[in-house]
Amino acid sequence: MIAIGIDVGGTSIKGATIRDTGEVLDRFSCPTDKSASPEKMIGKVCDLVNETLKEHQYNEKIAGIGIGIPGMFNKETGVVVNCPNLPTWAGFHLKEFMEERCHLYVKMVNDADSAALAEAKFGVGKDYNYVLMITLGTGVGGGIVINKNLYNGHLGMGAELGHMVIEVDGQLCGCGRRGCFEAYASATALIRETKLAMEKNPGSLLKECADELDGSYARAVFLAEKRGDPIAKEVVDNYIKYLCEGLLNYCNILRPNIIVLSGGIANEGDNLINRIKAYMKERNYGMKNTPEVKIEVASLGYDSGKIGAAALYF
Amino acid sequence: MIAIGIDVGGTSIKGATIRDTGEVLDRFSCPTDKSASPEKMIGKVCDLVNETLKEHQYNEKIAGIGIGIPGMFNKETGVVVNCPNLPTWAGFHLKEFMEERCHLYVKMVNDADSAALAEAKFGVGKDYNYVLMITLGTGVGGGIVINKNLYNGHLGMGAELGHMVIEVDGQLCGCGRRGCFEAYASATALIRETKLAMEKNPGSLLKECADELDGSYARAVFLAEKRGDPIAKEVVDNYIKYLCEGLLNYCNILRPNIIVLSGGIANEGDNLINRIKAYMKERNYGMKNTPEVKIEVASLGYDSGKIGAAALYF
Repeated sequence: MIAIGIDVGGTSIKGATIRDTGEVLDRFSCPTDKSASPEKMIGKVCDLVNETLKEHQYNEKIAGIGIGIPGMFNKETGVVVNCPNLPTWAGFHLKEFMEERCHLYVKMVNDADSAALAEAKFGVGKDYNYVLMITLGTGVGGGIVINKNLYNGHLGMGAELGHMVIEVDGQLCGCGRRGCFEAYASATALIRETKLAMEKNPGSLLKECADELDGSYARAVFLAEKRGDPIAKEVVDNYIKYLCEGLLNYCNILRPNIIVLSGGIANEGDNLINRIKAYMKERNYGMKNTPEVKIEVASLGYDSGKIGAAALYF
Repeated sequence: MIAIGIDVGGTSIKGATIRDTGEVLDRFSCPTDKSASPEKMIGKVCDLVNETLKEHQYNEKIAGIGIGIPGMFNKETGVVVNCPNLPTWAGFHLKEFMEERCHLYVKMVNDADSAALAEAKFGVGKDYNYVLMITLGTGVGGGIVINKNLYNGHLGMGAELGHMVIEVDGQLCGCGRRGCFEAYASATALIRETKLAMEKNPGSLLKECADELDGSYARAVFLAEKRGDPIAKEVVDNYIKYLCEGLLNYCNILRPNIIVLSGGIANEGDNLINRIKAYMKERNYGMKNTPEVKIEVASLGYDSGKIGAAALYF
């Protein structure tokens, strides 16, 4: 069996034909035009799907199309509720539109959820029943996979894993509340704290490293720390503390077998991951007498969104 | 069909025969002797089960025994891991012991989980797929019920809903971490804050109300507030704020249809519940464009633990 997996991103919409083993067959993509109507954008994607299917004439049964979008949708109606980065999409009947154009069944999924499903079925989570994925990017997203099925809650609008307050009255979050996990564990939060430390401590290595890395502050703080800068170490230690307190919450609430980390920060390498593991182990994974929760970096990379969207059928 | 439901509490162990409609047939109970061995205590309970079944000669099929315990156990082995209030029970092979004595299949459940299952199947949650129960007592416990099944995570050790940090480096919690939901939303936390406010403000009505209620500080703070005491209002407002921030977290993480509140504080009446509802509605249930999460007080009262333990079979 095969399915079409599509991943709607801020700069491009990527798709591929995916086999039910997780194998990626034929890729297609087009740039995301944020000013265009969703009808025009998704119309283009439907053309690409139809061309791919016509060109390759697969022998296997095509189960349908899975599409991951960066926002919320109504699971029952297939209507987009809210895509912060694609404001014109709110209210768009995506499922109905695509089904009419492609004559295939269409399933929608949140983009963080699709990556989680991909890792749970074909990646580092494939041997486990309870898989949590946390994406540390511009924001903090994630997905909950229970026995290989996504958990989403009422109308598919749960698993907003970045929006758990870990500090009442804390840092303002994009969602309007104060103190969310996202406001401490996202790359945006790390950049904010790095800039703040840089301003307060002009003698630190932070500025030099940021200049060297063309203003990539999130990477600069790790570099400065590696070069022995104590201010950078303080910023990173504090980041790890808040990140891990949030992860420990998820250990207690959901007690997964594994937490899969993804996003830019998760790719910072073994040094960071080992420190996260050490912080969590020291606190016995959240509570005494409870089983270990594995912490691993996502393994499917660039293709995970597409694989996960298609995996809604496998 | 019927099943035996047992609820192990700190002062007594209560049981009953429960019909698969939720109806409670015949009750039995014995005092909890914390100094006795688990073999002796559970041996007594087994005798009561066997006597009940002999006496009543039910015509219906007996599915088995469900037993709710105030602590953690290993779902795979049926061994008690940790019961904070029954320290001698750790390591006890409860399932095996009861199955041998009663010749019935035995299923174990955490006591907070059994109450959650009862409410989800027969109480205020019966019309919903996603039910969360939060018990506001000495501690904060709870249960997650998805499509009428308990969610517990790896080895049944998840859903420790009181142990989510909502204030990093905050109040010390019994679990060893700082800033847990339980350290702010439990009756214990409310009593702590009431006593603190009383000491700081000897002119408030708090002492008078506490004396009138024989030292029940949790009830005293609500009474003093009702009588117009501004200090009491401050304590209650702050309690509601932290409680609701925790509940809003669960709206975002799990997006249930309903959160069922139980425990002493939940029985404080409409005034408190309406203020909780107002706080949450104002924040749009956690995030914008998301569906309402109902807040209701548990409806099954005293019997819920027994009903829920038996409901493991229905």
